[in-house]
Amino acid sequence: MSTQLQYARKGKATREMRVAAREEPVNARQLGKLIAAGKAVLPANRKHEGLRPIAIGQGLRTKVNANIGSSPLHPSLKEELRKARTAVKYGADTVMDLSLGGNIDRIRKTIVKSISVPVGTVPLYQAFVGRDLREVSEDDMFNSIERHCNDGVDFITVHSGVTRKALPLVKKRHAGVVSRGGSLLLKWIAFTGQENPLYKNFDYILEIARQNDVTLSLGDGLRPGSLKDATDKAQLQELQLLGKLAKRAKPKNVQVMIEGPGHVPLHQIERNVRLQKRLCGNAPFYVLGPIVTDIAPGYDHITSAIGGALAAYHGANFLCYVTPAEHLGLPGIEDVKEGVIAARIAGHAADIAKGVKNAEKWDDEISFYRKKLNWKKVFDLAIDREKAITYRKKSMPKGKECTMCGKYCALKGL
Amino acid sequence: MSTQLQYARKGKATREMRVAAREEPVNARQLGKLIAAGKAVLPANRKHEGLRPIAIGQGLRTKVNANIGSSPLHPSLKEELRKARTAVKYGADTVMDLSLGGNIDRIRKTIVKSISVPVGTVPLYQAFVGRDLREVSEDDMFNSIERHCNDGVDFITVHSGVTRKALPLVKKRHAGVVSRGGSLLLKWIAFTGQENPLYKNFDYILEIARQNDVTLSLGDGLRPGSLKDATDKAQLQELQLLGKLAKRAKPKNVQVMIEGPGHVPLHQIERNVRLQKRLCGNAPFYVLGPIVTDIAPGYDHITSAIGGALAAYHGANFLCYVTPAEHLGLPGIEDVKEGVIAARIAGHAADIAKGVKNAEKWDDEISFYRKKLNWKKVFDLAIDREKAITYRKKSMPKGKECTMCGKYCALKGL
Repeated sequence: MSTQLQYARKGKATREMRVAAREEPVNARQLGKLIAAGKAVLPANRKHEGLRPIAIGQGLRTKVNANIGSSPLHPSLKEELRKARTAVKYGADTVMDLSLGGNIDRIRKTIVKSISVPVGTVPLYQAFVGRDLREVSEDDMFNSIERHCNDGVDFITVHSGVTRKALPLVKKRHAGVVSRGGSLLLKWIAFTGQENPLYKNFDYILEIARQNDVTLSLGDGLRPGSLKDATDKAQLQELQLLGKLAKRAKPKNVQVMIEGPGHVPLHQIERNVRLQKRLCGNAPFYVLGPIVTDIAPGYDHITSAIGGALAAYHGANFLCYVTPAEHLGLPGIEDVKEGVIAARIAGHAADIAKGVKNAEKWDDEISFYRKKLNWKKVFDLAIDREKAITYRKKSMPKGKECTMCGKYCALKGL
Repeated sequence: MSTQLQYARKGKATREMRVAAREEPVNARQLGKLIAAGKAVLPANRKHEGLRPIAIGQGLRTKVNANIGSSPLHPSLKEELRKARTAVKYGADTVMDLSLGGNIDRIRKTIVKSISVPVGTVPLYQAFVGRDLREVSEDDMFNSIERHCNDGVDFITVHSGVTRKALPLVKKRHAGVVSRGGSLLLKWIAFTGQENPLYKNFDYILEIARQNDVTLSLGDGLRPGSLKDATDKAQLQELQLLGKLAKRAKPKNVQVMIEGPGHVPLHQIERNVRLQKRLCGNAPFYVLGPIVTDIAPGYDHITSAIGGALAAYHGANFLCYVTPAEHLGLPGIEDVKEGVIAARIAGHAADIAKGVKNAEKWDDEISFYRKKLNWKKVFDLAIDREKAITYRKKSMPKGKECTMCGKYCALKGL
């Protein structure tokens, strides 16, 4: 069976492309061209029933991913399902299930079945969970990848860029390795003395991914975990490698995107994005944040909204949300909501700035009604209707104006 | 008596300059040079007893202002005093009292007496409050300015750039006028047919300000109130005028900064800052936000953190916070806190990016302890200690790791 990339390269617009193009400033044919060029991906596992496909890439609306997933300390399917649904309710375009605890298979299957947005996972985790590092075999890793792909997951992170070469580089770092996958693999490499199987046997991963048309997200296992490590040798060496791997995916008809940092000071963001685009043949860039300062645990949805907006403005295509709980604990439902909305704000602000067609229409409409003090319309258009209503209610307004200025409201009369 | 600017021009470092320089990457002499050149201001009313002076401007740490002030609908001195103290507690560098309700004189005097950071006001409001527009005279406006200056206010906003010329320009706008001061003056101009007294008699304002060494903040009465109005003719025409007025202040030994937008899409922020610097002889730029999208009432501390970080990176010097209550109602205590912290994050991220000396030290320190899972130190260094502690507590961790990854914590071992 053909993959989306295969169809795209033949110039055929699939049903998935047509659906995904509906909410984009391009049509299905144009989207197909972007996919064929490797500038966009359309993650759609053939086995994901009821999937509402979306596309990620150049010229398209910036997309937002929400990470959920059980912790070994709080392994609740019910809770994670609620988080996934909350994320979708508040506008996440995709959900990644990063479960580490409880019945991981059951959680993943239930989430794929229960939500209609593309689902991503990091199969590697499951190869390591519950096992001693020394017991994990190459087969465990590939079996896990195969299982996730067969369960209908639309995109998987594979940390194929983490190699033996990285070991001496990360030792020089201020904050070491902060990627879970990167850290597990480096420890495995250090222990076994073997090269990373996900790097060594990358072609095998491509083969598995192609079967159900799973999109690969090449993980940044060496992303910086502090401003001080940003754009360092370890990070750049991995990025270079990811660029090379990305180029091997296309002839195998597998779609690829690239994951990126992390912790990056404001002035290095543009450079990071341009570098990724150049090294990876303009493959979609999927960034985690980036957060622009390390000082604000409890507020990293804000530090990442700043970095995400700037990254997306300069060309990043996919923002992984960061919740207020980041660096402190597993996020709760409210954190998931706050994280999704902050990332959507960042993506939307960037879309306006980079001129994504019609992006500003939403703003122009809400500000039109705001000027008229038409609260009903303002609430209906607000990114979070309930919060806007709650705020106005609790301030106990007495007239049409808000309680900030009362009768001295600037909006009246001019 | 001499003003700070006068001393600076004579090459004399005052006690205020020495104190303000302590927390800056410059010494008192260098600060004096910046003040003499009009590139920095040191708002310090001679009558503000117990003031801990700070400076605002080029090469200095980005400062944050918190607006508080009673509404006609909620005129509580106690509440506003609590807000002022909350703002200072969470690190606001200055507080503006924008009271419109209750005993405005008493609120202002109490706040000046109660907090040690510089206090700003908009005297114009008081000339209009409780009066019919038709009754407000030029004298009312100047009397109000005089009263505020005599009460120890360190900086005042004067909307001297709003003139008759603006009337036809704002009529073409999507969201009209959103500055309270700008709107009051334009209505007054439209009704009386007279020119704006704060423009016409700007020299008189300089005279009053000089007496107690009050810094003028030239208000942007025509700032855009929607993305659609950003960087429009009304805004630019006013900015040009403010630049001319700023140049008249220096020979009168009065310090000046310039207020700026507002609602500005991401890609126009750099241009806005550069324009202000060029037109206003590099006078400090004091921006309200800017917010980078109109769609997020309830989250405008985030939309403004994005814009503020970018503005400060490109050269803005002073960020007026925006709280989550913006566009919805008078902020409460919790909103004040959230607003101050979001703006501080933006300013700090920008300071790192523009290379303010030692700015990144804070980040390097907290990430050092984060890597070591030394929670006590992380909490002590966090921008909001209490929130970080609360988050960790409520997640119910069982070991040294956090509940996100538990024993699979990436920070361990590499």
